[in-house]
Amino acid sequence: MSKLNVTQKLIKEHLLEGEMTPGKEIGIKIDQALLQDATGTLVQLELEAMGLKKAKTEVAVQYVDHNLLQTDFKNADDHAFLLSASRKFGLWYSRPGNGVSHPVHMERFGKPGKTMVGSDSHTPSAGSLGMLAIGTGGLDVAAAIAGQPYFVKMPQVMGVKLTGKLPDWVSAKDVILEMLRRYDVKGGVGKVIEYYGEGLDSLSAMDRHVIANMGAELGATTTVFPSDQETKRFLRSQHREEDWRELLPDEGCEYDLHDEIILDDLIPLIALPTSPGNVVPVSEVAGKEIGQVVIGSSANPGIRDFWIAGAIVKDKSVVDYVSFDINPTSRQVIQNLIDNKAFANLITAGARFHQSGCMGCIGMGQAPASGTISLRTMPRNFPSRSGTEDDQVHLCSPETAAASALTGKITDPRDMEKLFGMSYPKFEQPEKEIINTDMLVPPAEEGDEVELKKGPNIKTLPEIEPLVDSADVPVLLKMGDNVSTDEILRAGAEVLPFRSNLPEISKFSYSVIDDTFYDRAQDAKGDFGGHIVVAKDNYAQGSSREHAALAPKYLGQVAVIANSYARIAWQNLVNFGILPLEFIDIADYDKIEQGDLISFKNLREDVKSRNNIKVRVQKSEKGSEPIEFEAKHTMSDRQIEILLKGGIINEFKAKLSNEEVHAVDKNTVTDNERQQIK
Amino acid sequence: MSKLNVTQKLIKEHLLEGEMTPGKEIGIKIDQALLQDATGTLVQLELEAMGLKKAKTEVAVQYVDHNLLQTDFKNADDHAFLLSASRKFGLWYSRPGNGVSHPVHMERFGKPGKTMVGSDSHTPSAGSLGMLAIGTGGLDVAAAIAGQPYFVKMPQVMGVKLTGKLPDWVSAKDVILEMLRRYDVKGGVGKVIEYYGEGLDSLSAMDRHVIANMGAELGATTTVFPSDQETKRFLRSQHREEDWRELLPDEGCEYDLHDEIILDDLIPLIALPTSPGNVVPVSEVAGKEIGQVVIGSSANPGIRDFWIAGAIVKDKSVVDYVSFDINPTSRQVIQNLIDNKAFANLITAGARFHQSGCMGCIGMGQAPASGTISLRTMPRNFPSRSGTEDDQVHLCSPETAAASALTGKITDPRDMEKLFGMSYPKFEQPEKEIINTDMLVPPAEEGDEVELKKGPNIKTLPEIEPLVDSADVPVLLKMGDNVSTDEILRAGAEVLPFRSNLPEISKFSYSVIDDTFYDRAQDAKGDFGGHIVVAKDNYAQGSSREHAALAPKYLGQVAVIANSYARIAWQNLVNFGILPLEFIDIADYDKIEQGDLISFKNLREDVKSRNNIKVRVQKSEKGSEPIEFEAKHTMSDRQIEILLKGGIINEFKAKLSNEEVHAVDKNTVTDNERQQIK
Repeated sequence: MSKLNVTQKLIKEHLLEGEMTPGKEIGIKIDQALLQDATGTLVQLELEAMGLKKAKTEVAVQYVDHNLLQTDFKNADDHAFLLSASRKFGLWYSRPGNGVSHPVHMERFGKPGKTMVGSDSHTPSAGSLGMLAIGTGGLDVAAAIAGQPYFVKMPQVMGVKLTGKLPDWVSAKDVILEMLRRYDVKGGVGKVIEYYGEGLDSLSAMDRHVIANMGAELGATTTVFPSDQETKRFLRSQHREEDWRELLPDEGCEYDLHDEIILDDLIPLIALPTSPGNVVPVSEVAGKEIGQVVIGSSANPGIRDFWIAGAIVKDKSVVDYVSFDINPTSRQVIQNLIDNKAFANLITAGARFHQSGCMGCIGMGQAPASGTISLRTMPRNFPSRSGTEDDQVHLCSPETAAASALTGKITDPRDMEKLFGMSYPKFEQPEKEIINTDMLVPPAEEGDEVELKKGPNIKTLPEIEPLVDSADVPVLLKMGDNVSTDEILRAGAEVLPFRSNLPEISKFSYSVIDDTFYDRAQDAKGDFGGHIVVAKDNYAQGSSREHAALAPKYLGQVAVIANSYARIAWQNLVNFGILPLEFIDIADYDKIEQGDLISFKNLREDVKSRNNIKVRVQKSEKGSEPIEFEAKHTMSDRQIEILLKGGIINEFKAKLSNEEVHAVDKNTVTDNERQQIK
Repeated sequence: MSKLNVTQKLIKEHLLEGEMTPGKEIGIKIDQALLQDATGTLVQLELEAMGLKKAKTEVAVQYVDHNLLQTDFKNADDHAFLLSASRKFGLWYSRPGNGVSHPVHMERFGKPGKTMVGSDSHTPSAGSLGMLAIGTGGLDVAAAIAGQPYFVKMPQVMGVKLTGKLPDWVSAKDVILEMLRRYDVKGGVGKVIEYYGEGLDSLSAMDRHVIANMGAELGATTTVFPSDQETKRFLRSQHREEDWRELLPDEGCEYDLHDEIILDDLIPLIALPTSPGNVVPVSEVAGKEIGQVVIGSSANPGIRDFWIAGAIVKDKSVVDYVSFDINPTSRQVIQNLIDNKAFANLITAGARFHQSGCMGCIGMGQAPASGTISLRTMPRNFPSRSGTEDDQVHLCSPETAAASALTGKITDPRDMEKLFGMSYPKFEQPEKEIINTDMLVPPAEEGDEVELKKGPNIKTLPEIEPLVDSADVPVLLKMGDNVSTDEILRAGAEVLPFRSNLPEISKFSYSVIDDTFYDRAQDAKGDFGGHIVVAKDNYAQGSSREHAALAPKYLGQVAVIANSYARIAWQNLVNFGILPLEFIDIADYDKIEQGDLISFKNLREDVKSRNNIKVRVQKSEKGSEPIEFEAKHTMSDRQIEILLKGGIINEFKAKLSNEEVHAVDKNTVTDNERQQIK
């Protein structure tokens, strides 16, 4: 493997553990970290619980772009907390209104050749600059900020060769929609998509962002572009050419998988409800009446994307029954749109301009009317994500969106020539963009001196108990197959506001299955010091939300005994200090009932030594004899260490305070030195 | 009364009924009507129920500026309904994003010498142009649109003489805050505030809007300014000088009450939480740390108001812990702010720009963090109105707001000279503003052909029953003194979304007092055809919401028997067809209990003839003898007519269909004509 593609080069330069064989776990050094506010509050609380002094990544940035509506005190309290925590723990803070994380990060912080993890699934957008950028759970990002490697299975690299040039009225969004048409929403799982070839010449850095961003919709680990002359031009336009380095695939390098897109053959595409993978040509659905058009989001964030919409609607009017919503990406983009007249063109034609941020893309307002089609340049159209049940969200390019706003019907933008006698407007990249960094707050010089601002809904994470050595705890719940994390800790408007308030959110634990659970868990904690639950196959499937482990742990959950686990949830249980046991003989499942009392003895030693775990069941029926059976676990050595300490937060706390000790040691004057002073 | 002030001239020109004696009821012709979306959906449903063909006012405009967040389908459905209803019933429709009703109305439709009613309490803003503009309930606005006079007690006119000239750093907001300092929030009740004198020369038309707008906070019926050369200049800047007419007070005219403000003596003022009447000099509270500044709303909507903020923060940065929110008034204002660079100045300094509309002023987002001070240029700071409980909202001028955003503390703007070496920026009124009318949709030429678009949450008002002649109905609720409309039909996020859905909202009737009420009312409707309720003194005090009468009527409420009524609620009961009876002997209150059965006989005739109403009580205890007592009513002849028909909607329905008949009559060819055709 002497000739490397860009992905391999990036990984090789950062490899700390493992081998670069697809499917094998590798640990890589992380240079940058990205947080958004919806996931960031918990990450910052984790950093606090770990006792972090200062972020160890080269750059870590806390963006505020999700929770901007502020219908009560909670959003604004979160913002104040995130500002104080960012300053304290050594992160940059991008203020509310500064813009959407991914494009702002690309403009201000992204650097070719660097690695990044982010607590947002569209983190791969930074692949547009020749970075290896991966979206992951909050605790992984906290770990990276604390200086730990990021562990991931070495992905396969799919090389997608781009040839030719995009036709008029077809743009980057159509390229990624073509990929989604070919591979659907699971086609990228376990893969990095790497684009190469002469077709890249007609794709600007921001076009590449569009493609990398929605690579997440393919399920890909990430998307990677080379860092070439266009990357250099982009960084120059951002007044930071010095951050450029070239990063090209070696000539003759190989890819694990191959595909090719002939750009000249692409036509305007559209994803129908309710999946980004439902892609058809726009012409197939043209003529359907629409009620809304939304332009913006990290899937079409560039100046060009708004400029082209402005150029299309210039001196025309949006039909009166269409809400033409514009979500400017960032303050900086607004200033450039004022400068290049796109803003005025859009406003004059009938646009509603919203504050900079994710907005409707994540269901923060902009819900469409019932029974109407909404065309959006956004990355996702999952059912009800817009806030309207049974919504009909279609995903398309700014060209298709703007043309449709003028006609009130889904319109193939190529028809603009016929309908309005208009030829395709050509965007000229500005030599230098107007730059605005005033809303980026740097970390404090002395983080120690910064006090965390915690509103009444932000609660410090409590101390987490290490694994107990023996326990006599009740079975509080016996569940069946395929229990989802939504059943363990549901999402929704009632629960989400408490994501920074563990005592409050834990009240919803298992409430979907049994709304007496919380009260019973509190009693069990008082009477027995904790509890266990039992399930059958595929426990905790679905969303990766960490609260589905953290909240039960907070309520005293010592262990789960199940026949099998969903992969991420199984990791989460260990990461938050709950023992994930597996039945050796599934017949034992029938021996336990809710209300039975379980005894564990010598648990720590047995876990450590990989012995089977003895489970003694005192049935709840009076006078019945105890039953015993054995269960097993399949944790790695690293995971066993984490579990014994009570989870990953405790592990880091120990590690970071050790470093502290070492640091103090280093500062301690040696006998030798003391003599010299004399 | 040969020499008239402006208020008297306006009333005299429009007087249809009554005499211009303060305290006596007058009926005036209404030229214009203003609706906003939050109140407008019910008004439009009332227009539908009345069977209106086409608005009879010269101009009626439906604005959409309140419910813009769209967190589910309901807001967008309302917008689609309001567009269809406006086109059908002959109203203009101002699309979401076009801007806040009051300033847009002033710019596009307001005319000196005209009268207007509006279903929004800040309707008096149009007094800035020499109009008589009154905020009122939705049904009054519907009646005006249907061509009826507006009935109001002839107010006292308070003449406020303005002399001198505003000092630097002091602006129109400080004038109205001075009035609030002098008179507090009830000082204007029953009065029209009319400004006159040479001090007017230094107040632009939009400055006058600021003062007229917050006249509502004095409790005034309305505020009136003369139409002078400045009014002419303003209309010229709006490209419609032809709509100007002069309207000045006669020299030597008289006012019922007098006051004077020497503008030179004014200083920057601020209203402390939680009332617009808590006014103190800014210098008294200067230095307190703030968390938010919001500029915008109908209380500071002018281009100047944003321009001055932009000029103050130009080339400076807002402190990092302050959210600097800008709510542009309208699309047109945004375009002018782009043109005069204010937009760029604000954005560069760290502003969050929001969509055009009322936004945080009515608690639609922008809630401040807990425990922090929010400075706003808005008209109201009632407790929790911002969305944050125990909020600390302060009201002030754009000058005070912008200066404070820079320091992070409440700052007297006069200190800008000392702090930043800055002299007061002077605004030059533009000769012509950029005008934008693209988002104003005219009424349809043929309203008949327009179909109403009703989403699943918008329900046609049901037929309302006329007053029954006899009834045997149960007493479903016996209440005490001071029952509020909040107890009869509460507000809040759970209930408000159903304001266009009578069947749904009626489920909340009296739920605060007794959550079995709805079910019992449904049973009573089925078994007995309706019900009554009983109360003591001051029934239905508080908010004027009409649903507190409409919903009980929908559930079959025939009558209320109370010792006394709150004034507006008493009118509402009649307007929606519920008989408001009063005890003649309060001792009778003790004779009725919940569960008793009440018999009325010959009710229609007795009401009409002003006879006492016989109330026969069959006690619920078995075998007990019926009791009888008499009750009375105090309705006017006009009200009796309305009640007998089942309320004002039925009355108009009859009236409008009569007109129809007459119109048809007119079109019928007479014998005479027929002969001529021969």
